[in-house]
Amino acid sequence: MKSFMDRDFLLDTEAAKKIFFEGAENKPIFDWHCHLSPKEIYENRQPEDIAELWLAGDHYKWRAMRNCGVDEKYITGDASGYEKFKEYARIMPLLIGNPLYHWSHLELKRYFGIEETLSEKTADVIWEKANAAIKAGGFTPRELIEKSNVVCLCTTDDPADSLEYHRLIAADEGFKTKVYPAFRPDKAFGIEKPGFLQWLTQLEQVSGMTVQSFDELVEVLKTRIAFFAKMGCRASDHSFSYAPYAPADKAEINEIFRKAESGKGALLSQEECDKYMTALLKSLAAEYAKYGWVMEIHLGAMRNNNAKMFSSIGPDTGFDSIGDWSTAYTLSRLLDSLDKDGKLPKTVLFCLNPKDNYVLSSMIGNFQSSEAAGKIQFGSAWWFNDHIDGMKEQMKTLANTASLGCFIGMVTDSRSFLSYPRHEYFRRILCSIMGELVDKGLYPDDWDALTHIASAVSFDNAKKYFGI
Amino acid sequence: MKSFMDRDFLLDTEAAKKIFFEGAENKPIFDWHCHLSPKEIYENRQPEDIAELWLAGDHYKWRAMRNCGVDEKYITGDASGYEKFKEYARIMPLLIGNPLYHWSHLELKRYFGIEETLSEKTADVIWEKANAAIKAGGFTPRELIEKSNVVCLCTTDDPADSLEYHRLIAADEGFKTKVYPAFRPDKAFGIEKPGFLQWLTQLEQVSGMTVQSFDELVEVLKTRIAFFAKMGCRASDHSFSYAPYAPADKAEINEIFRKAESGKGALLSQEECDKYMTALLKSLAAEYAKYGWVMEIHLGAMRNNNAKMFSSIGPDTGFDSIGDWSTAYTLSRLLDSLDKDGKLPKTVLFCLNPKDNYVLSSMIGNFQSSEAAGKIQFGSAWWFNDHIDGMKEQMKTLANTASLGCFIGMVTDSRSFLSYPRHEYFRRILCSIMGELVDKGLYPDDWDALTHIASAVSFDNAKKYFGI
Amino acid sequence: MKSFMDRDFLLDTEAAKKIFFEGAENKPIFDWHCHLSPKEIYENRQPEDIAELWLAGDHYKWRAMRNCGVDEKYITGDASGYEKFKEYARIMPLLIGNPLYHWSHLELKRYFGIEETLSEKTADVIWEKANAAIKAGGFTPRELIEKSNVVCLCTTDDPADSLEYHRLIAADEGFKTKVYPAFRPDKAFGIEKPGFLQWLTQLEQVSGMTVQSFDELVEVLKTRIAFFAKMGCRASDHSFSYAPYAPADKAEINEIFRKAESGKGALLSQEECDKYMTALLKSLAAEYAKYGWVMEIHLGAMRNNNAKMFSSIGPDTGFDSIGDWSTAYTLSRLLDSLDKDGKLPKTVLFCLNPKDNYVLSSMIGNFQSSEAAGKIQFGSAWWFNDHIDGMKEQMKTLANTASLGCFIGMVTDSRSFLSYPRHEYFRRILCSIMGELVDKGLYPDDWDALTHIASAVSFDNAKKYFGI
Repeated sequence: MKSFMDRDFLLDTEAAKKIFFEGAENKPIFDWHCHLSPKEIYENRQPEDIAELWLAGDHYKWRAMRNCGVDEKYITGDASGYEKFKEYARIMPLLIGNPLYHWSHLELKRYFGIEETLSEKTADVIWEKANAAIKAGGFTPRELIEKSNVVCLCTTDDPADSLEYHRLIAADEGFKTKVYPAFRPDKAFGIEKPGFLQWLTQLEQVSGMTVQSFDELVEVLKTRIAFFAKMGCRASDHSFSYAPYAPADKAEINEIFRKAESGKGALLSQEECDKYMTALLKSLAAEYAKYGWVMEIHLGAMRNNNAKMFSSIGPDTGFDSIGDWSTAYTLSRLLDSLDKDGKLPKTVLFCLNPKDNYVLSSMIGNFQSSEAAGKIQFGSAWWFNDHIDGMKEQMKTLANTASLGCFIGMVTDSRSFLSYPRHEYFRRILCSIMGELVDKGLYPDDWDALTHIASAVSFDNAKKYFGI
Repeated sequence: MKSFMDRDFLLDTEAAKKIFFEGAENKPIFDWHCHLSPKEIYENRQPEDIAELWLAGDHYKWRAMRNCGVDEKYITGDASGYEKFKEYARIMPLLIGNPLYHWSHLELKRYFGIEETLSEKTADVIWEKANAAIKAGGFTPRELIEKSNVVCLCTTDDPADSLEYHRLIAADEGFKTKVYPAFRPDKAFGIEKPGFLQWLTQLEQVSGMTVQSFDELVEVLKTRIAFFAKMGCRASDHSFSYAPYAPADKAEINEIFRKAESGKGALLSQEECDKYMTALLKSLAAEYAKYGWVMEIHLGAMRNNNAKMFSSIGPDTGFDSIGDWSTAYTLSRLLDSLDKDGKLPKTVLFCLNPKDNYVLSSMIGNFQSSEAAGKIQFGSAWWFNDHIDGMKEQMKTLANTASLGCFIGMVTDSRSFLSYPRHEYFRRILCSIMGELVDKGLYPDDWDALTHIASAVSFDNAKKYFGI
Repeated sequence: MKSFMDRDFLLDTEAAKKIFFEGAENKPIFDWHCHLSPKEIYENRQPEDIAELWLAGDHYKWRAMRNCGVDEKYITGDASGYEKFKEYARIMPLLIGNPLYHWSHLELKRYFGIEETLSEKTADVIWEKANAAIKAGGFTPRELIEKSNVVCLCTTDDPADSLEYHRLIAADEGFKTKVYPAFRPDKAFGIEKPGFLQWLTQLEQVSGMTVQSFDELVEVLKTRIAFFAKMGCRASDHSFSYAPYAPADKAEINEIFRKAESGKGALLSQEECDKYMTALLKSLAAEYAKYGWVMEIHLGAMRNNNAKMFSSIGPDTGFDSIGDWSTAYTLSRLLDSLDKDGKLPKTVLFCLNPKDNYVLSSMIGNFQSSEAAGKIQFGSAWWFNDHIDGMKEQMKTLANTASLGCFIGMVTDSRSFLSYPRHEYFRRILCSIMGELVDKGLYPDDWDALTHIASAVSFDNAKKYFGI
C-alpha cells in the first residue's frame, strides 16, 4: 500500500519514476491555454484567505459542492469565506476518486506545505495554517506563477479587448513570465445571441472602423488579428457544439449578417447560423494560417443548462455539461475545405465528450504536413475529462492511433492561479503510462528515448509548436 | 492466483477487503427498482426445480443460450426443465467473463451451498443437489427475499394496476420486508402503440373516471399517483429511447390526444409523439415533485428488435438491445423546463448505452439542490452494463465528474427471486474501486471515511433518498 | 520489469502463458478477411528490400509518418527506399504505445530473426540485415504465407472481377494454402459515385449480360455470386457509413436506378441512395443466405477526407478516419427485415467507432439461431482499433454481453504479406484476458475449458463457421 500522494504519487513502476524524475519533473511550464485574468496578473493583489483563492471563482469546486447537496448560500451565496471553506472541507471525503481531491491536496502540499488531508475534522487547522501562509506572502498572482516555473502563458481574449493589461504586463520588466493574449472570437460567432449587436459596437469602438456587412466584419477582425499578433499572440481559440460546416454563397452570408445586424439575429435558423459560422471560420482560419497561428477548437460543451441559475449568477458558474452531437463529418469537411486551398493553420482539436476521442485522434491523421511535427493535434483531456482516467484515455487513444511522442501536452484551461500542479498531475500520468509500457515489455528500456519523449510532451513540443 | 470466487472474490487489495467486510458486507438490501411480481410474492409458491427458478423467465439466460447457438426448443420451447438446464450447463464455460457466469455461481453458493462449477460434466450432480435443496425448503419467493436480508423492495407497476397484491402483502404481518409499488406509466406514453386504447379503458375502469382529453388523462393519472402514494409508493419509472423534449401549446397536445383517442395513434409522427410525451412527462413530474417521489428515467433501450420472435413469444424475452440516440440536449431542456418552475422531482438518470455515461454524469451537476445530497443521480450500470467493467465504468465516471460518496447505488432491475447476490457483486466491485484508490496512494487510509462511504453507497444513501 | 517483447510478450500471468502455449500458439491461421492481391500471390515475385515490403503500400505506416511530420516525399514521394526506411526508423520511437511499434518488431523477429529495436541509430544495421535475409530467400508472397502457417485466406474481390488469379492459384498444386475470393460489391452500392457507370460496363462485360434496370442488376449479381461460389467463395463483404435501412417500393427503386443509369447519379439525394442500398442489400443478402455465405458488414469508416491527396494519390492511402453516425436503429430494422423472411445469412458486424462496440455486441443477440453457434457475430477490433486496448475492449465487450467462447476471432484485414503476426498479437491478447480472469479468481482453473476456448477463438470456430 502506497502512502497517500507521496513522492511517487501516480508513479506505479520503477520505470515511471525514472522517466518522471529524469525527463519531466523539472521542465518549465508553458500554459498555452488558460482563462487567467490579465488584469489580475497586472494588479497582482494579495489574496485575503484560502477561501478567496479556492472558492471565489472556481466553478469546478462549486459544482462538486452542489453535487453533494451543499446549499447555494455556501457556494456563491452570502455565507462567509470561512463557512464556505468549512462546507468544502466537509464534502471533500465524498469526492473520493475525483480530481478535485488530488488537485486540492497537491495545492495544499506544493504552495502551503500542508500535509494533512482535508475534511470536516481538519478544516479549522488547515484554515489557520493556509491563511498564515498567505499572510506570510508569496501568494499574489505573479508570485504563484513564478513559483510554479511558468515561462509563458496564453490568456483568452475577445477581439474587442484593448489588451491594455497585456501591454502593461509586457512593459513591466520585473515579471519574467511571458503573458500572451489568445484570440477568442466566440462573440463574433454568436450571431443569434442577445449580446451580438452590443459586441459589434464594442468592436467598432476599439477598432475605429464601422461594420455594416459580413465583409467589413472580416476586415475588422483581420485588423484585430494583426494587433493581437503584435501583442505576441500565436493562437486563436474557438468553442463549438459541433464543427460547423455548411457552405453557402456570398449573397446568402450577407443576407444572414444583414438580418442579425438589423436586430433579428434571434430569428435565424440553425442552418443559417451554421452557414454564417462556416463562412466566418474559413475567413479567420486563412488569416491564422498567414500568421503561423495555432487554431484551437473546443468541441462539445453544452453551456448554461440551468436557466434559473443563469439569470441569477450568469455564465461559467458550473452549469455546463457534456453534449453529444455528431461531429466527424462536418469537421472533416471543414478542415478539408481549408486544406485544399492551402489555408489550414496548425490546429488543435479538443473534444469534451470522450466518445469523440477516437474520432479526433483518427481525424488528425488526414491533414498532417511537414510544416510541423503533429501539425494537427488531438488536444489533451479537458474539463470533465481532466482526471486520471480521462487523461489516460486521451493519451492512450493518441498513442494507439497516432503518435504520443509528437503530442504538445497539457494546459490548465483554468481561472485559478493555483492550478499549475495540474501540469504535474498530467506529467505523472504521462510517465505512468510510459513506465507501464516499459514494465510490461511493450517498449524497450531505452531511457534516452523515454526521457526525450517525456520532456517533449511536457514542454519542448509545445514550445516549438507555438514558437515561443 | 486466487481461487475461483472465494471469500475475497473481486477484492484485490487488503484495503478493498477491509472496506467490504467492515462497511458493506452486512448492510441490508433496499432494492428500489425491480420487476418482481407482487402476485408471486403474495402467493409464495414452492418452486418445482432449479430449471423453473433459473430458466422459466430469465431473458438474460435465454439470450446467452441463443448467443451460443442453442435451439429455441431448449430455451422457451417445449423441452423439459431438465433438458433446458443441461443446455444452460453445457454453454456455461463459453460464458467466460460474462456476469451470468458469476451470478449463476454466486446463486449456487449462496442459496444452494453448491461449490462445484457448472458445466456439461457437472450438470447432473448439480441438478440433483439443487433440486434436493429446493425440496428441503427455503426457496419460496418470501423465503428467498428474507434470507437475502432485503428490508424493502419496489416493484414496477402500471397506473391501471389495482395494486391488489401490494395490499394483500402489506396486510400480512408475517412478512417483514416492505414491498412498495413504483409508478410506471409507459403505456400512457405509448400513444402511437396498438394497445393504447385498450389501456385507456383499463385505466377508466380502475379509476371509475372517463378520459376524453389530455387534461382528463392527467387528472386520472394524478388520482392514481395519489393512490400509489397511499400504498407506499415513492418512485416513478420511465423508459425512453431518448429524453423527449418538444414543447407545444395546449391546443396541439389536445389535437394529438384526440387523434390517438379516435384510433389513429399509429398515424402520429415522431414529432407529435415527442410533443405528447413532453407534455405528459412535465405534468407527471410536477406531481411526483409534490409527493417527494423519485423520478427514474431509463434511457436508450431499443426494444423488440425481432419481429418473428415478438409475434411468437412477446416482449421481454431477450430481443432488446442498446440504442444510440443522442439525448444530451433534449434531456437538458426537459430537466431545465421543470427546474425553472420549481417542479423538478428527485431524479435518477440511467443510460443503457455506455457512450452516455459522461453525458449523464455531467448532466446531473446542472440541477442539484440542497433538498437532497445528490438530488439528481446518475443511476447504476444497468442491464447490458451490469458486469464488472460496466459497473466500474459507471462508478469511476461518477467519481471522476461528480461524487461517488453521494451515490444511491445498486438495484437488481430483475425478474428473478435469486438475483440479490447482484447487490453483493456490486458492493464488492465498489469496495474494489475504493480499495485500489487507497492501495495506490490516491486516497488516504482513513478507514472511518472509507467504511462510511461504502456503507452509504450500499444502503444508507438510498434509504435516506427514498425516505424508507 | 519484463524484457521487451520476449517469449511471454503480452502474457502477464502464469495462466495466460499456459493457455497461450497449450491452446493458441500452434493453431494454424485462417485469415478470412484480407486485402492481399491474388495477382501478387500468383506471381510470387521476390521483393527488392525491406522498404518495398514495409513501405510500398502500407497506409498504416504512411499515416504514422505523416502524424510525425515526415514530408510526403519520404512517404509516397520519389525518395529512395533506403531514405524512406530511414525516416520510418527515425520516427519509430515516437510511436510508443502504437501497434505499429509491436507489429514492426514482431515482423523483424519472426521473419528476419532481428532482435534489435528499430530507431535512427539502428536503421542502417537493420537495413543491411533485413535485406540480406530477403536476398537469402523465403520472402516471396507464398513463402511468407506458408511460413506463417496460413491454411486458408479470403481476399476481397469486386463482382466484376474475373477471378483469373484465383483460378491460377487453385490450379497450382504446389501451393497448399487455400486462397478464396470474397464478394465485395461496394461499387454496386456506390450508385451516386463517378465510377458507377464505368463499373456497370465492366460488370456487363465480365458477365456477358446487359443491365438496364435494378432487376437486371440483381440478376447479374446473382450470376456473379454463383460464379464466386464455384470459385470457393464463402463470404461477402460490405462497407457502409451506417447500416442502410430505407424501405421503398419497386417503382421508386427502379426510378432511382434509372436516374443513375442515365448519368444523373450524382444528383441523387442521400435518402434515395439509402433506399437503393437497402433494396440491393436485401436482394443480395437473401442470395448469400441461400449459399450459406457469411455476410460481413463494416460500419463507420469515413473515407477520402483529404481532397488534395485523393486527387494526387487516390484512395486507400491513409486519409480515412472514423465516422460517428448513429446506426443501431437502421441496423436493427435491416437485420429484422431479412430475418422475418428467413433470409438473414450468417453475419459479422464490425464497427470502426468504438462507441458502437456495445451497440453491436448487444445487437447480435437479437438474431441468433441454432444454424450456427454465434450465427450473428460481433467482429474483431479493426483498423484504428487493432491494438491492445482496442482488442481488449472488443473482446471484453463481447464477453460481458454475449459469448467470448463462440467468437470467430481475428482477421488481418491487411494488404501486407508480413501481417500474419497480428494473429499472434491477437491470440496473446485473448489469452491475456482469459489468464487474468483465472488469475483473479473470476474463472476456474479448468485448463481443458480454457485451452478449448483459446483454440476455438484462434481457429476452430472460424473454420466451422465458414465451412473450410
